[in-house]
Amino acid sequence: MVDTLHITGKTRLYAIIGDPIAQVRSPEVFTARFAAAGIDAVLIPAHVPADRFDAIVPALLALGNLDGLLVTVPFKARMVPFATRLGETSQVVGAINALRREPDDSWTADMFDGKGFVNGARRKGVRLEGRSVLLFGAGGAGSAVAYALAEAGVRAICIVDPMQDRSGHLVARLQRAFPECSFETRNRQTTFDMIVNASPVGMSPEDGLPGEIGALRAGTIVGDVVITENPTALIRHGGAHGCICITGRDMHAGQLDVLMAFFGADRQPGGSGGDPARVTVKAG
Amino acid sequence: MVDTLHITGKTRLYAIIGDPIAQVRSPEVFTARFAAAGIDAVLIPAHVPADRFDAIVPALLALGNLDGLLVTVPFKARMVPFATRLGETSQVVGAINALRREPDDSWTADMFDGKGFVNGARRKGVRLEGRSVLLFGAGGAGSAVAYALAEAGVRAICIVDPMQDRSGHLVARLQRAFPECSFETRNRQTTFDMIVNASPVGMSPEDGLPGEIGALRAGTIVGDVVITENPTALIRHGGAHGCICITGRDMHAGQLDVLMAFFGADRQPGGSGGDPARVTVKAG
Repeated sequence: MVDTLHITGKTRLYAIIGDPIAQVRSPEVFTARFAAAGIDAVLIPAHVPADRFDAIVPALLALGNLDGLLVTVPFKARMVPFATRLGETSQVVGAINALRREPDDSWTADMFDGKGFVNGARRKGVRLEGRSVLLFGAGGAGSAVAYALAEAGVRAICIVDPMQDRSGHLVARLQRAFPECSFETRNRQTTFDMIVNASPVGMSPEDGLPGEIGALRAGTIVGDVVITENPTALIRHGGAHGCICITGRDMHAGQLDVLMAFFGADRQPGGSGGDPARVTVKAG
Repeated sequence: MVDTLHITGKTRLYAIIGDPIAQVRSPEVFTARFAAAGIDAVLIPAHVPADRFDAIVPALLALGNLDGLLVTVPFKARMVPFATRLGETSQVVGAINALRREPDDSWTADMFDGKGFVNGARRKGVRLEGRSVLLFGAGGAGSAVAYALAEAGVRAICIVDPMQDRSGHLVARLQRAFPECSFETRNRQTTFDMIVNASPVGMSPEDGLPGEIGALRAGTIVGDVVITENPTALIRHGGAHGCICITGRDMHAGQLDVLMAFFGADRQPGGSGGDPARVTVKAG
């Protein structure tokens, strides 16, 4: 039985854009969060065909009652030019997954996938400080995860991507932002403290491991940003070795609070004081 | 207490566009109707600022998961060129208030305000056949109401509008479509069987009557398409004379079933046979 939905002419809109869109979970999760916070808003799925992206996005941002946008595959990098200002993470990462409308109708954007992954790891009791990480994928998700892991204090990150240029450019940017962390693009070590997949490998049920991962110990942390019905090969492999595993769902769940705060939607309306609701984002 | 909303990545979208938008009631009403019919769809309010209309509308129609659109003030006439084909009413009236996506991604449109008004009148037991009508307003709503009243068998309609050209053109089009009904643009009679306001007069609480209405008898039918919190001056005047009154809300309620049928959303999924779900619309 479907509950009676309560949407009126005054209800504010948030949307998630992607192509395809049917697989996204944000509409369910955020609409429930808005309701729980007493906020008259819904988050709708908006299927933006990739070949119409450049025409549709400015029109969506011009809707007078749209207050925020989430961005998923394949638009996290393409969306960047449509933001008025970028948070620190997205400036280094070159991708965004959330935008919010400001009172002057400008759009502030940032990338929260990495923070979500780190929060997901911490919720499972993982201490990140001092670890050496092997990371597959230097795209939007990989960049964001690398940024957040460096920010969380890991010692070293080896970023492997079939497009060597891409991982090289990313490593150069990250090295400037985090001089105390060591970055490289070639896997010279045989063992790491942490193995993370942020490549698309694993999206198809037939996919195997994202690359050469070396020997797993029980203390190795295994992570995969891919969200699938069943665990990816990498997560199954980690589980079989008794490793703590951080999944794409953990990454998604780990950024809910942060995104609600970014949207300024994390407090009951009329609630008493406390910290400013919004995550501040430095202008780029 | 707000019910928990159930919107997922698979939920199909309908939207109502207008400027302003907060006053519309369709999101509430249609979202509840979709839920009651077991259809996974919501109708959202989309505030389209009038100065961005031409850029926003094609983008909305390009969203892959948008199945239908309702159109309200001030876009009912401006929306016409964006439809792939027009139903009979909208071809004469020159305005539309609903569009549906076809399987080939084209858009079929028609105008249902008039049908809603006629249905609202019939639900109050009003017999329309043979009546003489004084109608204020030759815009989108007035045109639609005139068309539907003629179709319902009224004898004569006098259409009064400050823009004489507009009422003149409308009368010419209607006369061709309904040769058996008599149309005119000047109020020469002193009494009519039915007085209907389809002009904007009444939207502001300070507004008086829409024009010279002559003497009201208890048998006179009084109608007003304006939707307001409190009755308009015309409706109050009719009520004071013991007249049956048809309000903007009656017009709105009177087209719900027709619009659900137009959207092909009037049957339980998997329900047994019966008539084809959709109202057929002849290509223009």
